[in-house]
Amino acid sequence: MTIAVLSALIRPAIEPHLPDWLEPRWFASTDELMEHAGEAEIGWFDLNDKKPMAEAVRRAEKMKWYNSIYAGLDFLPLDVLAERGVTVTNGAGINAITIAEYTVMMMLNHAKGYREVVRAQDRHEWLLDSPGKMELAGSKALLLGYGAIGKLIETRLNAFDVDVTIVRRSGGSDGVLGPDEWRGKLGEFDWVILAVPATPETDGMIGESEIAAMKDSAVLVNIARGTVVDQDALVTALQAGTIGAALLDVTDPEPLPEDHVLWTLPNADITMHLSGRAQDKMFMRSAQRFLENLGKYHRGEPLSPIFDPARGY
Amino acid sequence: MTIAVLSALIRPAIEPHLPDWLEPRWFASTDELMEHAGEAEIGWFDLNDKKPMAEAVRRAEKMKWYNSIYAGLDFLPLDVLAERGVTVTNGAGINAITIAEYTVMMMLNHAKGYREVVRAQDRHEWLLDSPGKMELAGSKALLLGYGAIGKLIETRLNAFDVDVTIVRRSGGSDGVLGPDEWRGKLGEFDWVILAVPATPETDGMIGESEIAAMKDSAVLVNIARGTVVDQDALVTALQAGTIGAALLDVTDPEPLPEDHVLWTLPNADITMHLSGRAQDKMFMRSAQRFLENLGKYHRGEPLSPIFDPARGY
Repeated sequence: MTIAVLSALIRPAIEPHLPDWLEPRWFASTDELMEHAGEAEIGWFDLNDKKPMAEAVRRAEKMKWYNSIYAGLDFLPLDVLAERGVTVTNGAGINAITIAEYTVMMMLNHAKGYREVVRAQDRHEWLLDSPGKMELAGSKALLLGYGAIGKLIETRLNAFDVDVTIVRRSGGSDGVLGPDEWRGKLGEFDWVILAVPATPETDGMIGESEIAAMKDSAVLVNIARGTVVDQDALVTALQAGTIGAALLDVTDPEPLPEDHVLWTLPNADITMHLSGRAQDKMFMRSAQRFLENLGKYHRGEPLSPIFDPARGY
Repeated sequence: MTIAVLSALIRPAIEPHLPDWLEPRWFASTDELMEHAGEAEIGWFDLNDKKPMAEAVRRAEKMKWYNSIYAGLDFLPLDVLAERGVTVTNGAGINAITIAEYTVMMMLNHAKGYREVVRAQDRHEWLLDSPGKMELAGSKALLLGYGAIGKLIETRLNAFDVDVTIVRRSGGSDGVLGPDEWRGKLGEFDWVILAVPATPETDGMIGESEIAAMKDSAVLVNIARGTVVDQDALVTALQAGTIGAALLDVTDPEPLPEDHVLWTLPNADITMHLSGRAQDKMFMRSAQRFLENLGKYHRGEPLSPIFDPARGY
């Protein structure tokens, strides 16, 4: 029998479909997870609190396959997973649809000034003119990160006649920049969209000089990780009006403290890392994918999607 | 010389480009419009206040071509224009892009519960879960009205993997219903989008029985005219929860009085007829189109887009 240590949260979705060669150990608390982690050949340790997940992974010395509902796993001891040769599958793409939808929503809301519409509604006031007068059509976007989420953002923005430029190692062709080219062209874009994975290379990739290179009207859209942006430099630029706005699904830290200056900036739109949560199909999709991977695992076939702990995505 | 009576608002955009066969009479007030209307062979009488526009059209007995920045001209004496055989060009399509963008924005905001996010921002509160958990992907929309705006909505929603059904006289094929078919299928849609022209036939086309036929979770999106919907029946359904929500760019009357019950319903999103105003290119596009039509008028070629006063669109 193969022992799998699994969160009780996913029990209703997967228990009826588990194969007979698998012996599940369900955990409903952090203590139960710590108790069973060492027995796991297969582990799915997702918790809201990320610290004990890392500890459980360290304890799971027999683990061969680790699965997560999350796409970014930078909070895990990736060196340990890499060293032990654990196969890791993640939630890449599972919430990509809702995140792409959310991204376009944030951009439209900025373009049309919709937050002011909501505030006027709450006052029962009929506005006579639109607080925002941008059209997405004809605007130019730089899209950094071309994984599952980036690709879905691109197709949606294309339908709005946004001119989307992506960044790829190959670079050079129309609408595609190489990794050394995009910084030099930052001043050409109305939107700079961050959909990169959380890795050491993307940490702080948008700093003071990148922000300074953007148009005064440029809008920075961050759906990646708060730490991808130098947040202090961003706040300074937003206050000075040297960039137009920041649409931030992610911040550093999260939750953002109640007294943080970002809350007070009218040109910052903070959406509380809700983009991936704005759907109710993630558990269902994740469970279905896990069950498919169980079959492949048993047959010795490659699992997917594979997360590489050495690369960090 | 051909006399054209034109609003002073468009003077900066068109005066430098007017041909020498045209004698413009600019009006900067309602009084000046009334004084000159009778001289016009060509008229562009747009005012914020619509009543004097109708009166000016009545007075313009020599007028052969009437132009407007607006798409819907139901506030004009269409019988008079039809009887006198006046060629009418309207603003069809001029604000179609922004209205289509606005429509998708309203749908995304409903799906993700974004209004609650704005309210939480204003309290500096980090929400831990999304107030809305719908995905547009996989949802089904009935699109009533397939003019310039409807077509742009369709392409944008298709990119979000919304299954869009349109209504056409031909009907019958996949994704297309005939004019007598859609009422019988109202219960199948997550979204019912009204993008029809304002005509006697569309007046009140969504009444108590149409609303009752929709899903309890259905969302009615009205970007046409407030009078296309029986608003009292809609309020009752919203209060009872027999439909999910109404996203209303238009209401009856406009502006909606401060004490109107619609403002108080959490499942009504009122956007104050701002959809067409959420851009800054309308004057430029309208001026450009008028200048092109001037050339055609002089050469005796057909103008476009033609508004038919007898049909009302």
